[in-house]
Amino acid sequence: MTSREQTTKNIPLLLIGCGGVGRQLLQHIVSCRSIHDKQKLHLRVVGICDSKTLLVPLDVFTMELDDAFLLEVCQAKLKGSSLLTLSNSGQHKVFSNPESMGKIIDIAALVPRSTGLAVIDCSASSDTTGVLTRVVELGCCVVMANKKPLSSSMEDYEKLLACPRRIRHESTVGAGLPVIASLNRMLSSGDLVHRIVGSLSGTLGFVMSEVEDGKPFSQVVRSAKNLGYTEPDPRDDLSGMDVARKALILARLLGRRIVLNDIKVESLYPEEMGPSTMSIASFLENGLPLLDKGIQERVEKASSNGNVLRYVCLIDDLRCEVGIQELPKNTPLGRLRGSDNVLEISSRCYNQQPLVIQGAGAGNDTTAAGVLADVFDVQDLFH
Amino acid sequence: MTSREQTTKNIPLLLIGCGGVGRQLLQHIVSCRSIHDKQKLHLRVVGICDSKTLLVPLDVFTMELDDAFLLEVCQAKLKGSSLLTLSNSGQHKVFSNPESMGKIIDIAALVPRSTGLAVIDCSASSDTTGVLTRVVELGCCVVMANKKPLSSSMEDYEKLLACPRRIRHESTVGAGLPVIASLNRMLSSGDLVHRIVGSLSGTLGFVMSEVEDGKPFSQVVRSAKNLGYTEPDPRDDLSGMDVARKALILARLLGRRIVLNDIKVESLYPEEMGPSTMSIASFLENGLPLLDKGIQERVEKASSNGNVLRYVCLIDDLRCEVGIQELPKNTPLGRLRGSDNVLEISSRCYNQQPLVIQGAGAGNDTTAAGVLADVFDVQDLFH
Repeated sequence: MTSREQTTKNIPLLLIGCGGVGRQLLQHIVSCRSIHDKQKLHLRVVGICDSKTLLVPLDVFTMELDDAFLLEVCQAKLKGSSLLTLSNSGQHKVFSNPESMGKIIDIAALVPRSTGLAVIDCSASSDTTGVLTRVVELGCCVVMANKKPLSSSMEDYEKLLACPRRIRHESTVGAGLPVIASLNRMLSSGDLVHRIVGSLSGTLGFVMSEVEDGKPFSQVVRSAKNLGYTEPDPRDDLSGMDVARKALILARLLGRRIVLNDIKVESLYPEEMGPSTMSIASFLENGLPLLDKGIQERVEKASSNGNVLRYVCLIDDLRCEVGIQELPKNTPLGRLRGSDNVLEISSRCYNQQPLVIQGAGAGNDTTAAGVLADVFDVQDLFH
Repeated sequence: MTSREQTTKNIPLLLIGCGGVGRQLLQHIVSCRSIHDKQKLHLRVVGICDSKTLLVPLDVFTMELDDAFLLEVCQAKLKGSSLLTLSNSGQHKVFSNPESMGKIIDIAALVPRSTGLAVIDCSASSDTTGVLTRVVELGCCVVMANKKPLSSSMEDYEKLLACPRRIRHESTVGAGLPVIASLNRMLSSGDLVHRIVGSLSGTLGFVMSEVEDGKPFSQVVRSAKNLGYTEPDPRDDLSGMDVARKALILARLLGRRIVLNDIKVESLYPEEMGPSTMSIASFLENGLPLLDKGIQERVEKASSNGNVLRYVCLIDDLRCEVGIQELPKNTPLGRLRGSDNVLEISSRCYNQQPLVIQGAGAGNDTTAAGVLADVFDVQDLFH
């Protein structure tokens, strides 16, 4: 064994975003200490940033935010407190907006020369794109659960991805499901991908399998909302824009130089029921029931062909689109029930039958686990 | 961008084993040149070794076996020629057994100090374990499609895996299917795996789904042999030992300290029909038909319970076994048809429904693609 393996590798981490995924990530980091110790890996958290405040140890180069403090952050953020309230002890330095993003770049500019830095984006903001791009230029690694920086303009995307080995984003598609890792393995070994079809929204997966059973669309959407499966405004799911962002990320991975606007997206509600003209309550009560008949007719038509309807993303040589497709019952997508995600990938190696990856594609636990696996995976870039 | 990204990374490769997978790997390396160029990666083949001969360029530190020669090797080996016949041009150095393995260690001892070396084992030999262990100690990376070095004693296994980041072996289980990569992601992020059930033999998958349709076992095994699905002696598949090796690799990945003998293996033929007492012809003609009734009864019993039979590996907290299991029809494993592999992984994150990975789990193309993806993945360990 060479000396390189005998010492513990130290990876400084800076977390942007303290919502459900960010908090869960901090908890995972703490609970994985013994696993990572065995692997001679230490994740040293040197900064946490919410939408207002960046909090760092007194000396970011030698100190870290300890585990007790990380768990305290989780508790406080869960209760809705700001990071500012945690900074009274004199044990940390605090930077408030608009200073905080500039400070992250300062840290990135100084830290990596010795040890490297991993910046983790668990926010849902499009404002982080500039910071992430800059820290990559400075030699840092970036791990994202945030889809926004990957769905901006082609120019921004190519700048951000200039050093692809230092960028990981498994949890942007299908939460922790090994979708991006598997696609990257295929692409790096020259396996030509012909077609991707996937159900990448647990919410819409649930809705489509429930209407298949004959339940009215309006009733199914309302139950989904009551079960906590939808966003506060269910139209954020029904618009298909979240799936479209995932489709864009997959298409760009395959080398397509397209933007969000190039994707044909089918919304499950008409424009006149949009948020600018109808309140959430009015949409649920008055809007939704008007859509029942149309959906029911499509379900019945598909069924008479022996098929089912699924809300999918479909990427092949000609198309990159998101919407309802009529699919054979007897396929992994056709058999899908409930809120699991499924991806079918057809390629040179997987030509007679597709490669299928299926499982829970949502939830803070699995999303944060995907982020942590990405961090583990970039460790060889740190010295 | 730092200067590190501007120069092409050079990975010296030494291939052990020139059978179907090894030859396909050489072809993939050549056909992926433009993909790897774009990623600033150059795979420099500095040695090829078959069971008798090691062939290297005149100067292993500065030269490489060029693409035309690699393709020539593929052609020659396909025709059954030895590497020796290719070494007449005076362009290469040749080392014959028993010298060749020692020479690999010599190269490994000298090369990695500057650039690192990846040793690829595409053989099916258990004799490579010592060499692989030694080159890892010397700082090299090892990528295996060969299961044997991972299914030896615990002591050998732990020595070989002493530096886990430098060992990859995706193609030892399910060919190129992203099984090991996905499991490693789960383990490194602290997702506790409760249970793995998988159909990991395309041959036995085919056999079990055909007998489910009412065809006699003997007839199905004979067709599988005629279709080229089985080993020359089908008992090599029917014994379950190949699946047992895969189960051992998965169980050890989960931290089990067990050996091949600890795995309960169900053979699909009785001991008295073994290769030491019955010829292949006699087994096919006289032995196999005696097994039809037993299998048919089990199929019918399962069917009367609404279930199907699958030949699976099953690993949970209590068991690590390989054999026929009665499984519900309405699961990914129960629905499996033909020769695809399926793996269901249940864990903390995938608790209500398992994570499912499904697709072609055999074939030189996908197996070699899995090896190449592993090589691509260790690139960050090279300078």
